[in-house]
Amino acid sequence: MNKTDKSVKTHGKAAITKPDEGKPALHAIKGGKPALVKSLPARPAVKPAAAKPSLLKAAPPAADDTPVIALNLEAAKLSPAMASYFKKCQDKLGFVPNVLVAYAFDMTKLETFVAMYNNLMLGESGLSKLEREMIAVAVSSQNRCYYCLTAHGAAVRQYSRDPLLGEHMVMNYRVARVSKRQRAMLDFAVKLTVSPWSAEDADRERLRRAGFSDRDIWDISAVVGFFNMSNRVASATDMRPNTIYHGQAR
Amino acid sequence: MNKTDKSVKTHGKAAITKPDEGKPALHAIKGGKPALVKSLPARPAVKPAAAKPSLLKAAPPAADDTPVIALNLEAAKLSPAMASYFKKCQDKLGFVPNVLVAYAFDMTKLETFVAMYNNLMLGESGLSKLEREMIAVAVSSQNRCYYCLTAHGAAVRQYSRDPLLGEHMVMNYRVARVSKRQRAMLDFAVKLTVSPWSAEDADRERLRRAGFSDRDIWDISAVVGFFNMSNRVASATDMRPNTIYHGQAR
Amino acid sequence: MNKTDKSVKTHGKAAITKPDEGKPALHAIKGGKPALVKSLPARPAVKPAAAKPSLLKAAPPAADDTPVIALNLEAAKLSPAMASYFKKCQDKLGFVPNVLVAYAFDMTKLETFVAMYNNLMLGESGLSKLEREMIAVAVSSQNRCYYCLTAHGAAVRQYSRDPLLGEHMVMNYRVARVSKRQRAMLDFAVKLTVSPWSAEDADRERLRRAGFSDRDIWDISAVVGFFNMSNRVASATDMRPNTIYHGQAR
Amino acid sequence: MNKTDKSVKTHGKAAITKPDEGKPALHAIKGGKPALVKSLPARPAVKPAAAKPSLLKAAPPAADDTPVIALNLEAAKLSPAMASYFKKCQDKLGFVPNVLVAYAFDMTKLETFVAMYNNLMLGESGLSKLEREMIAVAVSSQNRCYYCLTAHGAAVRQYSRDPLLGEHMVMNYRVARVSKRQRAMLDFAVKLTVSPWSAEDADRERLRRAGFSDRDIWDISAVVGFFNMSNRVASATDMRPNTIYHGQAR
Amino acid sequence: MNKTDKSVKTHGKAAITKPDEGKPALHAIKGGKPALVKSLPARPAVKPAAAKPSLLKAAPPAADDTPVIALNLEAAKLSPAMASYFKKCQDKLGFVPNVLVAYAFDMTKLETFVAMYNNLMLGESGLSKLEREMIAVAVSSQNRCYYCLTAHGAAVRQYSRDPLLGEHMVMNYRVARVSKRQRAMLDFAVKLTVSPWSAEDADRERLRRAGFSDRDIWDISAVVGFFNMSNRVASATDMRPNTIYHGQAR
Amino acid sequence: MNKTDKSVKTHGKAAITKPDEGKPALHAIKGGKPALVKSLPARPAVKPAAAKPSLLKAAPPAADDTPVIALNLEAAKLSPAMASYFKKCQDKLGFVPNVLVAYAFDMTKLETFVAMYNNLMLGESGLSKLEREMIAVAVSSQNRCYYCLTAHGAAVRQYSRDPLLGEHMVMNYRVARVSKRQRAMLDFAVKLTVSPWSAEDADRERLRRAGFSDRDIWDISAVVGFFNMSNRVASATDMRPNTIYHGQAR
Repeated sequence: MNKTDKSVKTHGKAAITKPDEGKPALHAIKGGKPALVKSLPARPAVKPAAAKPSLLKAAPPAADDTPVIALNLEAAKLSPAMASYFKKCQDKLGFVPNVLVAYAFDMTKLETFVAMYNNLMLGESGLSKLEREMIAVAVSSQNRCYYCLTAHGAAVRQYSRDPLLGEHMVMNYRVARVSKRQRAMLDFAVKLTVSPWSAEDADRERLRRAGFSDRDIWDISAVVGFFNMSNRVASATDMRPNTIYHGQAR
Repeated sequence: MNKTDKSVKTHGKAAITKPDEGKPALHAIKGGKPALVKSLPARPAVKPAAAKPSLLKAAPPAADDTPVIALNLEAAKLSPAMASYFKKCQDKLGFVPNVLVAYAFDMTKLETFVAMYNNLMLGESGLSKLEREMIAVAVSSQNRCYYCLTAHGAAVRQYSRDPLLGEHMVMNYRVARVSKRQRAMLDFAVKLTVSPWSAEDADRERLRRAGFSDRDIWDISAVVGFFNMSNRVASATDMRPNTIYHGQAR
Repeated sequence: MNKTDKSVKTHGKAAITKPDEGKPALHAIKGGKPALVKSLPARPAVKPAAAKPSLLKAAPPAADDTPVIALNLEAAKLSPAMASYFKKCQDKLGFVPNVLVAYAFDMTKLETFVAMYNNLMLGESGLSKLEREMIAVAVSSQNRCYYCLTAHGAAVRQYSRDPLLGEHMVMNYRVARVSKRQRAMLDFAVKLTVSPWSAEDADRERLRRAGFSDRDIWDISAVVGFFNMSNRVASATDMRPNTIYHGQAR
Repeated sequence: MNKTDKSVKTHGKAAITKPDEGKPALHAIKGGKPALVKSLPARPAVKPAAAKPSLLKAAPPAADDTPVIALNLEAAKLSPAMASYFKKCQDKLGFVPNVLVAYAFDMTKLETFVAMYNNLMLGESGLSKLEREMIAVAVSSQNRCYYCLTAHGAAVRQYSRDPLLGEHMVMNYRVARVSKRQRAMLDFAVKLTVSPWSAEDADRERLRRAGFSDRDIWDISAVVGFFNMSNRVASATDMRPNTIYHGQAR
Repeated sequence: MNKTDKSVKTHGKAAITKPDEGKPALHAIKGGKPALVKSLPARPAVKPAAAKPSLLKAAPPAADDTPVIALNLEAAKLSPAMASYFKKCQDKLGFVPNVLVAYAFDMTKLETFVAMYNNLMLGESGLSKLEREMIAVAVSSQNRCYYCLTAHGAAVRQYSRDPLLGEHMVMNYRVARVSKRQRAMLDFAVKLTVSPWSAEDADRERLRRAGFSDRDIWDISAVVGFFNMSNRVASATDMRPNTIYHGQAR
Repeated sequence: MNKTDKSVKTHGKAAITKPDEGKPALHAIKGGKPALVKSLPARPAVKPAAAKPSLLKAAPPAADDTPVIALNLEAAKLSPAMASYFKKCQDKLGFVPNVLVAYAFDMTKLETFVAMYNNLMLGESGLSKLEREMIAVAVSSQNRCYYCLTAHGAAVRQYSRDPLLGEHMVMNYRVARVSKRQRAMLDFAVKLTVSPWSAEDADRERLRRAGFSDRDIWDISAVVGFFNMSNRVASATDMRPNTIYHGQAR
């Protein structure tokens, strides 16, 4: 791969060093605060003391010499909202997730991705955040998406404080000893991923009998859909996860 | 299916009759005007005289007694931006696409969906709008998504002024006599849909050799991803297309 | 493709201009009258006034500059029975279906194909003609056969006077709101297409419980079999449907 | 299975005892003599002395207490042509193939099946009869059709005088050490069986380069199609082969 | 294939001519006598008089000019245990199974293979030897393994004295009229072969209800596993079965 | 699951507390020392100081209240060889791998499994131990085997000292940046796992061109085969890995 100096890879750091604190474009949608950053503290910090300091020293996207994606796209100037958002990621997570760096060649694409992601994964729902992450990983396992399995596998480990649950979702969700409700949710998620044409009334009824409301069914479907999208964008571009994810919450 | 009176199905009309012309939430992202409506006139109106008048008489979402989706979700009050957007759809298309009605139970979800859709399908790209619609249909054919095959099959017929091309994309994209460039694009789109794990450098190289820039590759991948998402949301909810699509541009 | 002047493509017209009205070979099998032509009027002519006149002006197989198949096969002289049959097609349908033109390089092959087709699709059966066409399209959808989806999709639209039903069969038969009996029939047809080895007593019992006689089960199976044959012949030869089908009964 | 006395199983014998030698319905198509019987002597009789006498003693369809198919269909009176044909089968083969018994509930279906079969498998072609049988078995192996693997596996053993070749076609055609021409033929046959939608110009070109004419390509495709039909009819009806096939030409 | 003179193909005979009758390495594991040979007489010799004499004349592995495998591996000197074992095979079966010849390039690999095979297929178990062979063939049919289908298809025919049962296992186990217990066993064997990830508590319960103990379930699984291994080693190396198998117990 | 007190789960500890140091049955095969234990020190101990002490305190199989397998099999008395072997595992690894505990209901099965495993994974080969473990994990990923992905994923991390490489093998081997030689090896391993029937001369030639000898090809195939076996035994019995694996070498 012949990357130019101005590729996405090298962009992250520069953008972060000069955050533009203007009125964020994302504000209007999320009600004033980007939801991801707002919600992130809710993730139980399993090993916060150990993990964060070392990470903050090195600006992660730039510190890793692997390009974030295998496409040569020139970074755009971060919009004020996104600059603020990246800074908050850096402050709270210790790094900017590579998926955000990957989308940062175009502010509209980045903002709409962030808005949809935050609404789906962090917004109000009858599904817990852990359940949404479990779906994310079970779907990504079917699609064998390296980026999403890594980033969201870490999230399952963090939210659940159960490292094995994360591995179960990555390897074969059927081995996880989850509730009947969660099993029905995961069975549907995988079926919808593998054979979307086969979803029918009987499937919706099965979810209702397992305790899900119609709104919950929408939310399950939307998360399944979102990761079927992200898995393909990530695989098509050879998107690489931040290496820090691998060790998180083991 | 036991739908209540306040289900999504009956919502559309009411919302459209009292559009709230306040400051649109979507404004900040799209720069003042929802892109879909702005771009829609670009679609060549193949049979405008015949099609629109009859449609305007009946407010379409309500006129069809089929529920838009098989989930019982109560319609939310349209945000000013979305009310304006729905009104423009009604004015310019003669109907509000059912997918918008389906998302209208939650304004944030509707707005983020619209923002992402408009950016991908109508925004600037090295891919023509027709090419993006061709991808949409070829992907939806693999996933056998009734809603998307119908709505976007119509779009391919309209943009191309070639009714057969729309059928080719629905039935088997391999029978279409498209350019080598477009064939490479569609081959990649279908591969990424069917076996996303198998996308590799060789695939990206093949697209480059067919004349696509790295940004184009992103756009192909993003459209493929988007319809792999939408196909699943539509199938999971048994989303039904507006019947008008079936006859358009034949 | 380098087609010679004597290829199948250019044959149809010549053959039709000099029909040999001798005793038809097919007579012995069908009891005096080729079944297809005899039965065709039974198809409700949805838009007869509009459709037929314009078609009769142009002799369709010749008017379309697309070769009927991608093999260079020289047309045989039509046997008297087949010449008569082609003429009746032209008179009643307004065109000779391209599949007949494709087989017309060999009279025995053409006659046996016509005899089997007419018996299966138009002969006596506990299945209505519409039901047989529904099977044809659902099977062809699994095999993604452009020719059969087009020609028989039109037939479903015509017989049912329901344009959407034709689209449902083409796109995903599961979205059609058919009777339980018809759903059982289609489920079996698709299963037999996709995994013929898995057909067992339980499947036959399911059909019986849905109201089908053993003879009906034979007929379903025979139609499924026939289109699994025709789909492959059509795909192997890149057979192209008459363009008129696309617009019929929309 | 509750079979009545008048089921297909017991029919064969009665029909054969009173052959009606009137004008055969099939005559018109095949030119006076059913092709199958005419051609059958061409099969090298590998162990004729041993095999035939013992078989002639027992009228085979009746001697085997297994019903020919799992559907309860009443035998029709054999037409003169078919009675004559069955008698010739009995005389020359020593038995009537069960597939013919299975179709004998309806003379038109039986006659059209026989006519198509004879034309395809025994008529003139650039493919040898052995090659057509090899295709039959390779296709039937993909569809795991017990009837066709048994009956046509025996035919491959007989025509080739190579028992192993029959086993190779049944088990995995790739292990057979056939000519490049035949390998190309079998590769196409299996591809067309497994993924008919994927047949394209490149496949036809590959066959041409392997030495096949366009007419040969039609014949390969037609045989592939025919067995994709027969495999499904046989599996759907649980058709059972005559037990004599198993031991033939080992 | 360019085989050297010292390849596996030519080894068998030499090894057999100088058996080393020292203390067998396998002794410690099998309790003094290699189980395969000890158990082999238990196989009902269906046509012993005819089959063995002619075979004994020609030392089979060498008599067949087909290399046993498509890899050029030099034969090792047979260990005393293996020399004795090969001699017993020759004495009792009339030939040394080619799989043993194939492994004979390395004595440890040969001995561990033999030890595992003998324990699984001939050791004590709640499954009869025939049932284990039925599993072997049903699994090998899914994997289309020429070697195992041939060798173990013969074993099913021999143990069952039912030539058709062997064919059923090779072609499509679903057509065999076996007990409910055996059908449950085969269904599980094929499911575990095709989608091992899907084996769950419900599958084990189904086997228990069909009369299998937990130890039986282990044995079924171990035989399924063993042939999923052997099928792949055989296919990867193009292992060829002794031709004698083809005619055994027909 | 209703496990008795004497089930495999509780066996390990008792067996280990009273090792029988008599002449080991495995001796004859492996030349005096079980190969696994002998070779294990070769694994680079990535975090030995931290990992081992805490593990030694709790006898691992008993300390975990999850049954090792979902079958109720009573532990056998460990043979002297196996008792010695388990003790060495405990001493060197800090635990007895659960797969050994699972097989310990039958000493012959345990010994043959250990003998084959040690020969394949630790014996002499042109493949490094890491390469064999990479194959193990890539195969197990296709089969989604929780046990093997966990235990051998840890082994890849340990041998390679590259935690990411282990994740790559688990998630999607195609994302790993390995040598062309290793990529060819993994491509073949996955192909042989997914479609064993398709392995042909061209595949072997591809491996030879990538630098593998014929003996190496055997070894690759044998490791692929072994894990296709183990994956199925593990999935069929719901085998659970020792929890310690999850955190090793991260």
